[in-house]
Amino acid sequence: MTSRKIELFVPAITPFAADLSVDTARFVAHAKALIAGGAHGLAPFGTTSEANSLSVAERMAALDALVEAGISPQQLIPGTGCCAAADTITLSEHATRLGCRGVLMLPPFFYKGVSDAGVFDAYAQVIEAVGPDLRVYLYHIPQMSGVPITLPLIERLIDAYGAQIAGLKDSSGDWDNTAAVIAAFPQIDTYSASESLIPENAAKGGAGCISASSNVNPGGIRALIDGLNGPEHHALHHQVSQVRKIFEGLPLIPAIKSAVALQKDDNHYARVRPPFTVTGLEHADAVAEAVRVAR
Amino acid sequence: MTSRKIELFVPAITPFAADLSVDTARFVAHAKALIAGGAHGLAPFGTTSEANSLSVAERMAALDALVEAGISPQQLIPGTGCCAAADTITLSEHATRLGCRGVLMLPPFFYKGVSDAGVFDAYAQVIEAVGPDLRVYLYHIPQMSGVPITLPLIERLIDAYGAQIAGLKDSSGDWDNTAAVIAAFPQIDTYSASESLIPENAAKGGAGCISASSNVNPGGIRALIDGLNGPEHHALHHQVSQVRKIFEGLPLIPAIKSAVALQKDDNHYARVRPPFTVTGLEHADAVAEAVRVAR
Repeated sequence: MTSRKIELFVPAITPFAADLSVDTARFVAHAKALIAGGAHGLAPFGTTSEANSLSVAERMAALDALVEAGISPQQLIPGTGCCAAADTITLSEHATRLGCRGVLMLPPFFYKGVSDAGVFDAYAQVIEAVGPDLRVYLYHIPQMSGVPITLPLIERLIDAYGAQIAGLKDSSGDWDNTAAVIAAFPQIDTYSASESLIPENAAKGGAGCISASSNVNPGGIRALIDGLNGPEHHALHHQVSQVRKIFEGLPLIPAIKSAVALQKDDNHYARVRPPFTVTGLEHADAVAEAVRVAR
Repeated sequence: MTSRKIELFVPAITPFAADLSVDTARFVAHAKALIAGGAHGLAPFGTTSEANSLSVAERMAALDALVEAGISPQQLIPGTGCCAAADTITLSEHATRLGCRGVLMLPPFFYKGVSDAGVFDAYAQVIEAVGPDLRVYLYHIPQMSGVPITLPLIERLIDAYGAQIAGLKDSSGDWDNTAAVIAAFPQIDTYSASESLIPENAAKGGAGCISASSNVNPGGIRALIDGLNGPEHHALHHQVSQVRKIFEGLPLIPAIKSAVALQKDDNHYARVRPPFTVTGLEHADAVAEAVRVAR
């Protein structure tokens, strides 16, 4: 067990208005509620945030709104990785200028089967363009991106850019990979994408979690983090795993949004952009159960 | 055998300057050479064009340059499908306003495992926003996009939008799928992504091909199309298959660009954007062989 601080960063959902434009007021309200509810910070514009369904301009405007609403930029790790380097650079410069703690950066993800050397070049291009104030959290989510962040790639990036490589989010669901990253690179913050793995992550020297279901259960996850060494840790772990397991059986992102809508008694939060569709009624009971267990 | 016109549309490569900005002069020069060399038209900003490594602004400026250079918009089917609908709409409106024959549209491709209903919504959103002048060629390339264009989806789109659904490019490499699309939807233009399949495509009632290697071998592919019913068709088919087979053993897009550079004796054409890397010297002999066989 190391003394690294264990944190919860929430990949906040992006609420939409009836015309599917970003509902900035609800986005800010939800963000503030998450922090009030126990999150150490937010990782907006990730997979759960439908970030890749937002334009560059929409993402910058929504991030501005969070900061204008008084959320500390040091509590923000916005996603900025796009297919086109120009877009990734624009978003990363904007976040860096705002003073964000760092950015969560997908590799360019259209082309599959690309080499580590090519992915290194892609990250290097952005880091060189944005400059030394940028802090990069690498985003490993091969089941969506098709482009894994391998251990040799992480090593080469750290060799080249030192502390500018601040961390990694492992959304692969492969705990062995997370453990290998933590062991090989103790100098970076490694987050699991599942709150169920927080005990293992913390024990190995990881930095906590960035999890979709923390949109619904921030209080439960925060209680687990705070109680990791306490007498209730089994019960706390059971609670977060229970919520997570319910969502694993559902279309994840629409179900998370439906659950937030139910929690807030405000159906506007349930809207999704294509290619998602709103959660079907056949999942209403499961969503209600997740909300009942969440805190 | 139907009487449909068989055509070659080339997914033209995008040349880059030393700073990796779009080299518009070489882009236009290559485009004009392809048409002079036998292509019926161009499908720029596809996979081979590294389109997803270009920003929206870069894509629009490069398309403008083709039209300003005197290429008929009716010979252009630019790729416009991005992850974010706002970007796809901007590009599709621009191409439609220019008078392009249509647009080759990827589905939103970050999220995997999405439903046909969600992908339908994504296409519908763009078609409704751009309006009745838009003609859509659906882009089926599941090995890159992770989002297949299924037969039920095509049917639903044609039911909703009729002749606005103009065609489909099948890059899956699965001839059975191409044949099924042609059989089920004879009213749309279905292109194979391999010139080796032109005889089968033409015999079944398809519309021809949109193939990466046509950047290098436009004359050979055009000769095959023109000679499909002639005495030389076996030799012509052998030539196009020979070129294609060489590229299948190489990192495709960098190798195509290296071959164009060799053909034009101009190394500038070989540059790629990350996540690609320039073709290694170990492939120089194969690239030279492809150029030797091409015409």
